[in-house]
Amino acid sequence: MRALVLDGTLRFVSDYPDPKPGTGECLVGVRKAGICRTDIELTRGYMDFRGIPGHEFVGEVLAGPPNLQRRRVVGEINCPCGRCRMCRRGLGRHCPNRTVLGIQGRDGAFAEFLVLPEDNLHPVPDSIPDAVAVFTEPLAAALEIPEQVRIEPDSGIAVLGDGKLGILVAQVLNRTGARVTIWGHHREKMAPLEPLGVETRVAGEEPVVPSGEYDLAVEATGSWDGFALARDLVRPRGTIVLKSTLAAGSEINLSTVVVNELTVVGSRCGPFAPALRLLERGEVRTDFLVDAEFPFSQWERAFERANAPGAGKILIDMQGAG
Amino acid sequence: MRALVLDGTLRFVSDYPDPKPGTGECLVGVRKAGICRTDIELTRGYMDFRGIPGHEFVGEVLAGPPNLQRRRVVGEINCPCGRCRMCRRGLGRHCPNRTVLGIQGRDGAFAEFLVLPEDNLHPVPDSIPDAVAVFTEPLAAALEIPEQVRIEPDSGIAVLGDGKLGILVAQVLNRTGARVTIWGHHREKMAPLEPLGVETRVAGEEPVVPSGEYDLAVEATGSWDGFALARDLVRPRGTIVLKSTLAAGSEINLSTVVVNELTVVGSRCGPFAPALRLLERGEVRTDFLVDAEFPFSQWERAFERANAPGAGKILIDMQGAG
Repeated sequence: MRALVLDGTLRFVSDYPDPKPGTGECLVGVRKAGICRTDIELTRGYMDFRGIPGHEFVGEVLAGPPNLQRRRVVGEINCPCGRCRMCRRGLGRHCPNRTVLGIQGRDGAFAEFLVLPEDNLHPVPDSIPDAVAVFTEPLAAALEIPEQVRIEPDSGIAVLGDGKLGILVAQVLNRTGARVTIWGHHREKMAPLEPLGVETRVAGEEPVVPSGEYDLAVEATGSWDGFALARDLVRPRGTIVLKSTLAAGSEINLSTVVVNELTVVGSRCGPFAPALRLLERGEVRTDFLVDAEFPFSQWERAFERANAPGAGKILIDMQGAG
Repeated sequence: MRALVLDGTLRFVSDYPDPKPGTGECLVGVRKAGICRTDIELTRGYMDFRGIPGHEFVGEVLAGPPNLQRRRVVGEINCPCGRCRMCRRGLGRHCPNRTVLGIQGRDGAFAEFLVLPEDNLHPVPDSIPDAVAVFTEPLAAALEIPEQVRIEPDSGIAVLGDGKLGILVAQVLNRTGARVTIWGHHREKMAPLEPLGVETRVAGEEPVVPSGEYDLAVEATGSWDGFALARDLVRPRGTIVLKSTLAAGSEINLSTVVVNELTVVGSRCGPFAPALRLLERGEVRTDFLVDAEFPFSQWERAFERANAPGAGKILIDMQGAG
């Protein structure tokens, strides 16, 4: 099959062996895949991944049980062992023996076909177009926040970062009734949130922020500077949620965390079922997040565009010729 | 009055002006004061404090309302304004306008007399000796952990650090029924915890620790190395409580916090009332924590001893001649 293979560098391979589903697994034909920030980090050495990257996708089951056969699906990316202590606690997404689609020990979605366990697949309602369904995975990551942290409806929330994830997080948290402010560098990216009642602020342009204004800050900037700003924005006993995975460490002073008794919560993958419900009901908007779509043959242009500062979501049509 | 004054260096002053209680405040004659790690940090520039340090004390009310007059008392160290948003939420310990006894904007306990608001003082039951009552403040700091974090009784807890605070934290958390292991460098300091059912481990001497063994780790080592160990010891979705306030920052990689979805909770001062209840019932032992007691006149020896690596609690008898 045709696939993008990461092996130090990312390259196109036309004769990669077709994947063979094992017991309880399905063969999925990939329809569309999205390029995530994590994919860019992988090409820079994050996780030391070798193989086919890609974990945001919508596809069609080509071989699987009758209830899934020919169904359009999205797929959870963590494949747990099902037997260890974490799995027995219902924390399969943290199984130490897990493989992760296109990230760890398992080929991913930048290919004609992929394989995932049947349990990972969620049928996509017909009313959700492919270009929306492909946002199920990042929307689930946004929904991980209320899964981990109780969101008080009368709280003030700062979302730092106007990338795709920040925009999804702002929409999810805005639905709770909380006062949500998003901070970013691109006024035009944040503008569609204003009619939804989200306050927008351009970082650097605003007057000095009163410190301790917010009960909760979500760091989704993808840089360590975001952590420092979050730490200054939240009130004592407030919470900072970290959504960025970064390869490199940084000089961070945690003494404010102690003195102000802050809670810092790392947050990663989330639940797919509520993400699909919100997308089906049209209650989270993704249309203005898509920057461009490329046919598979133009994958290099797609990655270049995704790598540009401030890029929106880049989709690849995996079946499209070109 | 006689007092230790910090003004770049710590020095003895025999004619410091007696403090004058304001409205709602009491004059307290200091009986005993304890030297805390924070006091040592203050002498090194932490908080940029100028004045009389000292915040662990037991004293006697010399001027105050009838119900407190001549009573032996301990005192909460944060003096809130009572009017701001934090105070109205019941978070006076985080009042941005607060003074803190011997730490911020208010003279402390290394003196013959101190002044605190009446609301800060707690009468000490007669059955608690002075040398035990002086542990009320650090025991309250240990009790802040279950005030912030739900302790599941079937959890595994690692307490890092066998200093005074670590020993108190281990005792407090051990009372929940959880499996508690304390990690330290001094076998003899931890030994008294073994009959209480606390497992003890000498750091470095043990075989390699299985990572992810613990649900909760409390960092009470006073060094950044403690954070790195805590991060390795806790399971995915586990919690790290930070009890050390350190002046300097350090290179810290938070990506494990994100990938393993850890929760990091800063924790500082705690509630006095339950600390006094536990001390009155003899349910937390402090006797083996006291290293030595010095008369006020030997304050230099007291600080030298407190500054030595692995020192236990050093008390100063503030009324004692010598």
